[in-house]
Amino acid sequence: LSQDQSKHARRLLKSMHPAKIASLLERLPREQRVAALHQIDARTEPKVLAQLSPALRTQLTWDLDADSDSSRDTGSDPDAGSGEEPETQLNLVLDALDQGKLKRIAKLFRKLHPARIAGLLESLPATERARVWDMVESERSAKVLRHLHEEVRRRLAAEMDLEHLVEAARGLEPDDLVDLIQDLPTATGRQILDAMDQRERERLQSMLSYPEDTAGGLMNMDQVAVRGNIGVGTLLRYLRLREELPPNTDKLFVIDRRHQYQGILRTERLLTARPEQSIAELMETDFEPVPADQSSDAVAQRFEEEDLSSAPVIDADGRLLGRITIDDVVDVIREQGARALTGMTGLDEETDMFAPVLASSRRRAVWLGINLITAFLAAWVIGLFEGTLEQVVALAVLMPIVASMGGIAGSQTLTLVIRGLATGQLGRSNTRILLLKEMGIGLLNGLLWALVVAALAILWFGNWTIGAIIAVAILLNLLCAALSGVAIPLLMSRLGIDPALAGSVVLTTVTDIVGFFAFLGLATLILL
Amino acid sequence: LSQDQSKHARRLLKSMHPAKIASLLERLPREQRVAALHQIDARTEPKVLAQLSPALRTQLTWDLDADSDSSRDTGSDPDAGSGEEPETQLNLVLDALDQGKLKRIAKLFRKLHPARIAGLLESLPATERARVWDMVESERSAKVLRHLHEEVRRRLAAEMDLEHLVEAARGLEPDDLVDLIQDLPTATGRQILDAMDQRERERLQSMLSYPEDTAGGLMNMDQVAVRGNIGVGTLLRYLRLREELPPNTDKLFVIDRRHQYQGILRTERLLTARPEQSIAELMETDFEPVPADQSSDAVAQRFEEEDLSSAPVIDADGRLLGRITIDDVVDVIREQGARALTGMTGLDEETDMFAPVLASSRRRAVWLGINLITAFLAAWVIGLFEGTLEQVVALAVLMPIVASMGGIAGSQTLTLVIRGLATGQLGRSNTRILLLKEMGIGLLNGLLWALVVAALAILWFGNWTIGAIIAVAILLNLLCAALSGVAIPLLMSRLGIDPALAGSVVLTTVTDIVGFFAFLGLATLILL
Repeated sequence: LSQDQSKHARRLLKSMHPAKIASLLERLPREQRVAALHQIDARTEPKVLAQLSPALRTQLTWDLDADSDSSRDTGSDPDAGSGEEPETQLNLVLDALDQGKLKRIAKLFRKLHPARIAGLLESLPATERARVWDMVESERSAKVLRHLHEEVRRRLAAEMDLEHLVEAARGLEPDDLVDLIQDLPTATGRQILDAMDQRERERLQSMLSYPEDTAGGLMNMDQVAVRGNIGVGTLLRYLRLREELPPNTDKLFVIDRRHQYQGILRTERLLTARPEQSIAELMETDFEPVPADQSSDAVAQRFEEEDLSSAPVIDADGRLLGRITIDDVVDVIREQGARALTGMTGLDEETDMFAPVLASSRRRAVWLGINLITAFLAAWVIGLFEGTLEQVVALAVLMPIVASMGGIAGSQTLTLVIRGLATGQLGRSNTRILLLKEMGIGLLNGLLWALVVAALAILWFGNWTIGAIIAVAILLNLLCAALSGVAIPLLMSRLGIDPALAGSVVLTTVTDIVGFFAFLGLATLILL
Repeated sequence: LSQDQSKHARRLLKSMHPAKIASLLERLPREQRVAALHQIDARTEPKVLAQLSPALRTQLTWDLDADSDSSRDTGSDPDAGSGEEPETQLNLVLDALDQGKLKRIAKLFRKLHPARIAGLLESLPATERARVWDMVESERSAKVLRHLHEEVRRRLAAEMDLEHLVEAARGLEPDDLVDLIQDLPTATGRQILDAMDQRERERLQSMLSYPEDTAGGLMNMDQVAVRGNIGVGTLLRYLRLREELPPNTDKLFVIDRRHQYQGILRTERLLTARPEQSIAELMETDFEPVPADQSSDAVAQRFEEEDLSSAPVIDADGRLLGRITIDDVVDVIREQGARALTGMTGLDEETDMFAPVLASSRRRAVWLGINLITAFLAAWVIGLFEGTLEQVVALAVLMPIVASMGGIAGSQTLTLVIRGLATGQLGRSNTRILLLKEMGIGLLNGLLWALVVAALAILWFGNWTIGAIIAVAILLNLLCAALSGVAIPLLMSRLGIDPALAGSVVLTTVTDIVGFFAFLGLATLILL
């Protein structure tokens, strides 16, 4: 059992029963024993240690500590890792992986916030990620799972055995568990559900019935609901009995006998109230609850506009179902931002930086294929003017400039319109005003850059006619870019296509085609 | 005074003293009186009404109500506007503007959340925006200002007279007021500060000393700080005396005699505590405070990772300065998302959809100019091969395809790397692994699309050599795209340039140049 074979040893140890590992350890020399223990994952370790003789256990724990601490001399101090620098932590993890001293990672992880651990896991390629994942203690693995991106979470969960998965699932909040189940294969999801007790299962199933991108999919069922007819003193006694309130409880919800939503009661208000006041007196009835079928984007916008920390969710009959908290809304907002960035390159679902090469290639190939179609369309337009190009080769040199300027100007307008649509600030009634403004900008910038490009073209090729032609073509293309920049996203959103996803491809196709056609067409008319 | 001249009348009325308007109104016939009142802004109206004789006042208010309600018959019911549809509300505002019945807008606004009003204002071009802005009641204008985007806010504030601006400023929370002052011309900002009382002014000035994008710039000073040596009963009595707690108070902060931060006390914990317990017993001392000079991006990441609602801010000496609340962090996250979308088109600062044409044109012209330089670089590369193009014109037709495929593939890698850098998941230690993965994807997709494009080119031009040349050029360009997609953003961020802003331009310049050079260069070597 040498250091080099640690990978093999690890696989072997994983398949063994804790008692068997323990007896194996007892038979190994002291040094190899430590090396072997490094390879045992955090979930099995306590069980193995329990099987050892007390003397050996003490000695081994001591050796392991000394071994981890020795890293202090080599400059990669695990304590330093708990500081501010994710870069240092990542280095530490990679070093520990190289040297096979996985217990150092476990030691580091014990000091880190689950979100930070999740970040570190996402910074690693698949094989390393699986090894490091084993070093996460089982009681924390649920919290780490919750902070992972969808794709990474799905991949790690798929590798876990069911027993550990269920154990982790129990540690998740219901809304996160629902997300996880939705990400997993149906069979695995059902197995997790079956392992829950009946009340929990029913709760989860009712939450699973709402689509992920609605208020129902975002909500949690940990709200504190109270009846309006009790007094503050009684309520406070009840809360004291509960001992703990769920995180982000800034409001309690007031309901009536039939579980109908009545209003909210802010905890701030409760702290400053006199014990003899009644809940009905303190509650706010004008707080609009969120309907369970509202889209999560609309929920996010409301939270943002009204600075909410939590809001009640009701069903169609006005019954209180659960609550949405700001932490889940923050995730929605973050995802919207990420979608804006990645949507334009067709990377929408690639949330795992180290997804397997083949999976990534396939996903990106689709987008490249779509782009190829548009590129061939542009090439076809150029092909129409082969005769002209043969005679005036300068046109071939200059034509990409016309297309490129149109593409950039169009993207500027497109971005503005997509944002206006997303925030709901652009509607039928002010589209015309925006179009006029954008055409105005297109005209001004068109004139400016037409003159500049024409001057440069004349300097380069010494041909005034080509200068004039390229000037007109650029002006035309920039006007057309403004028009398409407004029209394309509006048309797409009316057809139910997300313009943030495909708007950019369609737009550049249009500006390429118009650019080449205007430039080469004019040249054919005038020069030949 | 006719309906058509309402614009003129409005300007005239604005410059008049309320008493003068009142006496003018008394001399007008009943119908014109209503029309005139429609043009008076929400801030002046109560003053004018106060000057009128009681009989006339009652009659006029009645007429105005009837007039607003008559809209119900024409189908544009102001009550409907308070519902869910921003589109309907916008229509209503535009209709009311058309008909000069501005009081309808005031009536609608009274029912809307300030954030919604802000959204409506942003949906309007400048002139209409100023007219509608006058219809916002002065006590609400502060809240509306707070919800506007920076650029729009600056523009509206610049048009307000100082008296109204100060009045609005008093209604803002300190952190929002600090943002506003930072947006305004220095002189105006100083005038607002001068109008505040001394304690408030000192507070604002200390907040203004922190840059906008740090924790100090985000924080508010409305925290509730308590000493650890008191009991829960005493604290609750103190809170009851205060009567109201600031919004988003999910934690109180514990400090010692010298105002040093000691720990946090969750209000949830306080609700469930027994009166005889002491604060020291209940507080959490392991909650890390935020240093005032931490970047707002880092603050946002921490809030998101740890699901915080608020956090204490301390100075370098560990003294409690203030607190950051989730609503401001949500704004930071939203801005990060917007930056990702608009940064790529150089629209970074264009937050006003209806910014004046000239201002917008100037801003966008810069980006077009940068793009022109890169376009000319590409054109220059093509120009090197004029001789080749003259002989084989098919090359001119196909060359944009090579460049375009490289640009798309490179953008995919670039997006991934930019996101990895933003989340801190990409560091020196895992760059090599990512590069290998991206090169692998480039190789796979390069081989796939090289074959497809070659096949199509051979079908089109019937020339096997051109097919082979374009295949090699595409494979080379996709490999180079993967390399640049990783290298360019890393290099930029090491040089302190935001890769989200300029990465895309630099990358497409590289893929254009490599694409054209590889394709035309190979063709020159082989075909000639």
